[in-house]
Amino acid sequence: MSGNKIRLGLIGGGAGSFIGVVHRVAAYMGERYELVGGVFSSQFESSKRFAESLDLDLCRAYSDLDSFIQGELALPASERIEVVSILTPNFLHYPMARKVVSAGFNVICEKPMTLTVAEAVEIESLASEKNIVFGLSHTYTGYPMVRQMREMIAAGDIGRIQKIDAQYYQGWINPLIHDPEKRAAIWRLDPQKSGQSCCIGDVGIHAFNLVEYISGLEITRVLADIDTLYEDNLLDVDGTAMFRTRDGVRGLIRASQIATGEENNISIAIYGNKGALKWHQENPTELHYLTDDQPQRIYKPGNSYNSSFSQDSTKIAPGHPEGLFDAMGNLYSGVAKAVRKESFHTGAFPGATDGVRGMKFVEAVLESNRSGQVWISV
Amino acid sequence: MSGNKIRLGLIGGGAGSFIGVVHRVAAYMGERYELVGGVFSSQFESSKRFAESLDLDLCRAYSDLDSFIQGELALPASERIEVVSILTPNFLHYPMARKVVSAGFNVICEKPMTLTVAEAVEIESLASEKNIVFGLSHTYTGYPMVRQMREMIAAGDIGRIQKIDAQYYQGWINPLIHDPEKRAAIWRLDPQKSGQSCCIGDVGIHAFNLVEYISGLEITRVLADIDTLYEDNLLDVDGTAMFRTRDGVRGLIRASQIATGEENNISIAIYGNKGALKWHQENPTELHYLTDDQPQRIYKPGNSYNSSFSQDSTKIAPGHPEGLFDAMGNLYSGVAKAVRKESFHTGAFPGATDGVRGMKFVEAVLESNRSGQVWISV
Amino acid sequence: MSGNKIRLGLIGGGAGSFIGVVHRVAAYMGERYELVGGVFSSQFESSKRFAESLDLDLCRAYSDLDSFIQGELALPASERIEVVSILTPNFLHYPMARKVVSAGFNVICEKPMTLTVAEAVEIESLASEKNIVFGLSHTYTGYPMVRQMREMIAAGDIGRIQKIDAQYYQGWINPLIHDPEKRAAIWRLDPQKSGQSCCIGDVGIHAFNLVEYISGLEITRVLADIDTLYEDNLLDVDGTAMFRTRDGVRGLIRASQIATGEENNISIAIYGNKGALKWHQENPTELHYLTDDQPQRIYKPGNSYNSSFSQDSTKIAPGHPEGLFDAMGNLYSGVAKAVRKESFHTGAFPGATDGVRGMKFVEAVLESNRSGQVWISV
Amino acid sequence: MSGNKIRLGLIGGGAGSFIGVVHRVAAYMGERYELVGGVFSSQFESSKRFAESLDLDLCRAYSDLDSFIQGELALPASERIEVVSILTPNFLHYPMARKVVSAGFNVICEKPMTLTVAEAVEIESLASEKNIVFGLSHTYTGYPMVRQMREMIAAGDIGRIQKIDAQYYQGWINPLIHDPEKRAAIWRLDPQKSGQSCCIGDVGIHAFNLVEYISGLEITRVLADIDTLYEDNLLDVDGTAMFRTRDGVRGLIRASQIATGEENNISIAIYGNKGALKWHQENPTELHYLTDDQPQRIYKPGNSYNSSFSQDSTKIAPGHPEGLFDAMGNLYSGVAKAVRKESFHTGAFPGATDGVRGMKFVEAVLESNRSGQVWISV
Repeated sequence: MSGNKIRLGLIGGGAGSFIGVVHRVAAYMGERYELVGGVFSSQFESSKRFAESLDLDLCRAYSDLDSFIQGELALPASERIEVVSILTPNFLHYPMARKVVSAGFNVICEKPMTLTVAEAVEIESLASEKNIVFGLSHTYTGYPMVRQMREMIAAGDIGRIQKIDAQYYQGWINPLIHDPEKRAAIWRLDPQKSGQSCCIGDVGIHAFNLVEYISGLEITRVLADIDTLYEDNLLDVDGTAMFRTRDGVRGLIRASQIATGEENNISIAIYGNKGALKWHQENPTELHYLTDDQPQRIYKPGNSYNSSFSQDSTKIAPGHPEGLFDAMGNLYSGVAKAVRKESFHTGAFPGATDGVRGMKFVEAVLESNRSGQVWISV
Repeated sequence: MSGNKIRLGLIGGGAGSFIGVVHRVAAYMGERYELVGGVFSSQFESSKRFAESLDLDLCRAYSDLDSFIQGELALPASERIEVVSILTPNFLHYPMARKVVSAGFNVICEKPMTLTVAEAVEIESLASEKNIVFGLSHTYTGYPMVRQMREMIAAGDIGRIQKIDAQYYQGWINPLIHDPEKRAAIWRLDPQKSGQSCCIGDVGIHAFNLVEYISGLEITRVLADIDTLYEDNLLDVDGTAMFRTRDGVRGLIRASQIATGEENNISIAIYGNKGALKWHQENPTELHYLTDDQPQRIYKPGNSYNSSFSQDSTKIAPGHPEGLFDAMGNLYSGVAKAVRKESFHTGAFPGATDGVRGMKFVEAVLESNRSGQVWISV
Repeated sequence: MSGNKIRLGLIGGGAGSFIGVVHRVAAYMGERYELVGGVFSSQFESSKRFAESLDLDLCRAYSDLDSFIQGELALPASERIEVVSILTPNFLHYPMARKVVSAGFNVICEKPMTLTVAEAVEIESLASEKNIVFGLSHTYTGYPMVRQMREMIAAGDIGRIQKIDAQYYQGWINPLIHDPEKRAAIWRLDPQKSGQSCCIGDVGIHAFNLVEYISGLEITRVLADIDTLYEDNLLDVDGTAMFRTRDGVRGLIRASQIATGEENNISIAIYGNKGALKWHQENPTELHYLTDDQPQRIYKPGNSYNSSFSQDSTKIAPGHPEGLFDAMGNLYSGVAKAVRKESFHTGAFPGATDGVRGMKFVEAVLESNRSGQVWISV
Repeated sequence: MSGNKIRLGLIGGGAGSFIGVVHRVAAYMGERYELVGGVFSSQFESSKRFAESLDLDLCRAYSDLDSFIQGELALPASERIEVVSILTPNFLHYPMARKVVSAGFNVICEKPMTLTVAEAVEIESLASEKNIVFGLSHTYTGYPMVRQMREMIAAGDIGRIQKIDAQYYQGWINPLIHDPEKRAAIWRLDPQKSGQSCCIGDVGIHAFNLVEYISGLEITRVLADIDTLYEDNLLDVDGTAMFRTRDGVRGLIRASQIATGEENNISIAIYGNKGALKWHQENPTELHYLTDDQPQRIYKPGNSYNSSFSQDSTKIAPGHPEGLFDAMGNLYSGVAKAVRKESFHTGAFPGATDGVRGMKFVEAVLESNRSGQVWISV
């Protein structure tokens, strides 16, 4: 009853946590993990009740992170939790990741990895020094057609990139933002909990990550215009960043949480001199390939015309949709391979370096806006 | 480490089985099951290797179904497998379900439940007599928007139904059917393994199930035209059934496996005197609601405007797609509630009665066609 | 101010006529016709007023068809109307077409060409005998992507056809049919005005025409189930015809006017052993091409990858949609070429033979249904 | 044979001209114009041949604009051309419009109205002074669902606007731009013919016009980043303008001609605090209405739920698509009403003021970019 599965622990993500469900299901999907324990709640009793509900050994339900680390380190390596998923609120990612990494555990961390670039750099160094596997949940990179898009670009199918346009539009803040009391109560608008940014840090960063992940290009400068909508609101709820890559390609990252009625309208279009590729998260099974003179083509998951990396990211036959859990499941599978020292594709999961890049983007955007919408290096 | 989760066993569905992955992932998703053992392969060694790969207790990897039943019955009830999923080839569903149900296990059975109506009726009786929970994997009933469609119709949102049109078009047999050698090698075209029908029994039956599940109407007569395409091919690869419900509503079930290039193009449109609803499996997060004089509306999962049954079938916030695994997961969650004697929605999972209905449909379609396309009672 | 344009006359289609607008705009589009006169209304005063509103010579506004023929024949050939468009209610198509053709005018006739097969055959013979050009307004054949679909099939792009599925679903009768008084007042449900059939004769016939036009196959047998919904309603408002072509291909024509909320949902899918093509009228600029193993392709009008026949049916650059008027305009342009003895594509416009085919289909469907849904030769 | 129709003349737009076809068909559609004469080509012979091909009076085919003006003014008012459409290359719009307006003709001018703001202001003043009707062909404002969008916003259906995002992406320059010889030969990249801008002036200006037309807001500042792609190319082929309206609303205008494979991908999304509206030109019959808590709605043309302005812009029943010609036809119909002193909707056609606005936008964008991407007043 032991040996093959990777022992997984969760920090946060217990009863009632949406993101907890996503991570646990993702871990189950590839059948490479066994959930063993964690700190499922800031309330010890609640943490234990949650462990019990999942038939876990109650000894592995800890009261806090320090006890978790102490308890697990006291166990023989063959029983010890191997991967720790950090699912706590944003402001806890950094201090917790620091402790967990320092203690030598592999980590899967919710994004944003930290609240500042400095913190991110520290985590990156620490992870490298400790030689642990560090995964960051930029979940959209797990979609088979996102991976296919990356592979097609790497293979030269669209030629030299000349324009990038990425968007993440949500509307969820609209019903709350216009009422002073309601907006004061949103944790994502509270700098103490959310950090320096709301919209850019929460969703713009995903678009940024997709741009770099898919295009293989590095964004080096941004000029951004962000909006808090109300003077008494400290954090951005909408923002646009024009950017340039190291090679001089122009592009856009557009993000909003006041795009009324939008759910998770993430989309990305990349235009090259030989073709273009377009993808939209709410219909994730279609990748559109455009050229100058041929009919547009729709790539769908699981087909043999896809790259092997994309095909390996699909579990079922074409025509049966997979969704967000499956995308996250692919990240967990990637981390599993790394933990088990199996070979894995370089795009199998985002890591600490991506976390640093993301924080650099967020800080550059904020600085650009603060300085009156001017170009800032990332 | 025990108590809450339901102990699950699998018959079939081991290494390399596509349907095995679907069932296991579905079982994990709701976190109500623990996979304990089974007969994962017809080869004992392979079955054991598979159990080992999942860190299962090797004592619970059995060589065959009889050993499985004997072994599990020998265990105290508190350790015994509670639900058995039958994932073997079609022709084994009936004999295995009979044994498993007779031994008093709850069952989740792949469709088609049996190869004949007579067998299906026997299973239904036996399940009732043994008072076990019997679930049948008409997976599409697990999609949140299929459930929403059912609920809206039950609530009268489209008024009295006046027309039904359901389709399941696939193209997978096309690359094989035109070559005599290749088509002779397809197990689904072998009556010994596949039963009386290929296309109607494999996909038409899903469309039939959706029609009755969603509309709440009972199909009482069919007139069908089916096609084997080649004389040396014994089973249908395409077929259409015109039907009438008990209330005289006309409708259509259209099925094909020679619809070249189609993946799993299942769609259903139901028209009533007050409105209409349309759903398409390959884009399962959209349910279209049409009326005489208002703009068409698109219902999407997870929103508060949906029925509670539909909302309970979603795990994540609107805009993050769920797919086939999630649909199957909802069926497993429904069975779990039934097994644990919790209250559950009447549409939570299809059962043995649906299995009987399906086989009656298949036999009526075949008889109609054999008799020269005439009306036959279902 | 004369010489190049073809002199056009209208019978019906005056003030307030929807179909009149369509024909006049279609005639203007290709700049090959000049509207000269006609019988624009059954009321002479109204006819004259309409002529005046369009700055026509009032001498060419006639009181009735006989005066029209007499008046025009009295003019020198160089001034005489050359093409007569017959836009009157269904029951007048035959008697008027007979007169107009007998008098030697070229004709563009609204569909259905007649109310019976016998009448249609007579018109066909007469048109042939008089050697006039006879166009029939099966407008959908004028869409560039319908023409592209026909050309691709003729070129073998989908190989040997193995399945056809065509649909024309409307909902317009739904708000009227359920009220006995309202339904009694619908002229399309009055056999005196509408003929033997409502739904099949009005919309099913379009689907039939598209099937034969696009596939190049001949439907030889039908088995149909039609619905009047109420006993006191004499004509069909919904119906399905299973069919077989001369080569044994199976297919379906599905038609409805009680498909609540549908506008003009005409779509056609044709599956061959090498590929498939799908088109949907409400988004007429996309033609979908599917194969076994390549990404689906979307053909759009005006692109150089289309056949010359399709390209000639487009007036603007790709990406600027054309619609129904443009489709009808293409039919008028085809007739213009025939009238002027220029070479024209065999698919440039439907003619009297298509009218005969359509009526044969309608009568076969009705007979099949009357006989209890049995196979009837077309 | 005279009296009701408006006598129309064309400057440019003769044989082989794509835009000429669009204008003539548009003029025919509403049956309010009669094409009488013009300068159809810079070659007199060609101009005459074109007139002959359309059966026009050859006396009305002029050799040049001066002759046209002189000739028409010499005619009695009852015969004189009333509306002159200017369809010449960009750099001729201003000098020709100046002459035509000065001579007292009503005008429909292709966009861009002029090459500079100064010229545009002059035309606007002159048109006002001469009290003539001046229409500008921002054709997209003629689409029924664009008009519906404008009306819904004016009616408060989306509340207070908080975000605007408009796009016009084309790819047509991609196959030409990368070859030095080919790009040197493109007239749109020649400042002598095209003016100060290619992409912004040709397509960005349409997006700008739609934003102001639909939202009713005034853009007062822009910050733009534009791209010529090659150093030896003088004019922009891609550009983005962030903007602010007078009320402080943020928005984006994104334009490209190097968006490989895109045809005329114009789309606009406007988000308010009560809802949002989205429209896309390549599928112009769908207007999407989003709110916080209700299913998304799709508005389609011709339905009674639309505003009367939108309904009046449709000629056929719902479900039969209209396209670009119909949109332009609506502009011509609007101008016809103005010329005939009939009441017309304020949004019936864009005019000289819109032309001034457009040029101000173009110059502001260019200046912003030249100055290093800084905010510039429009």
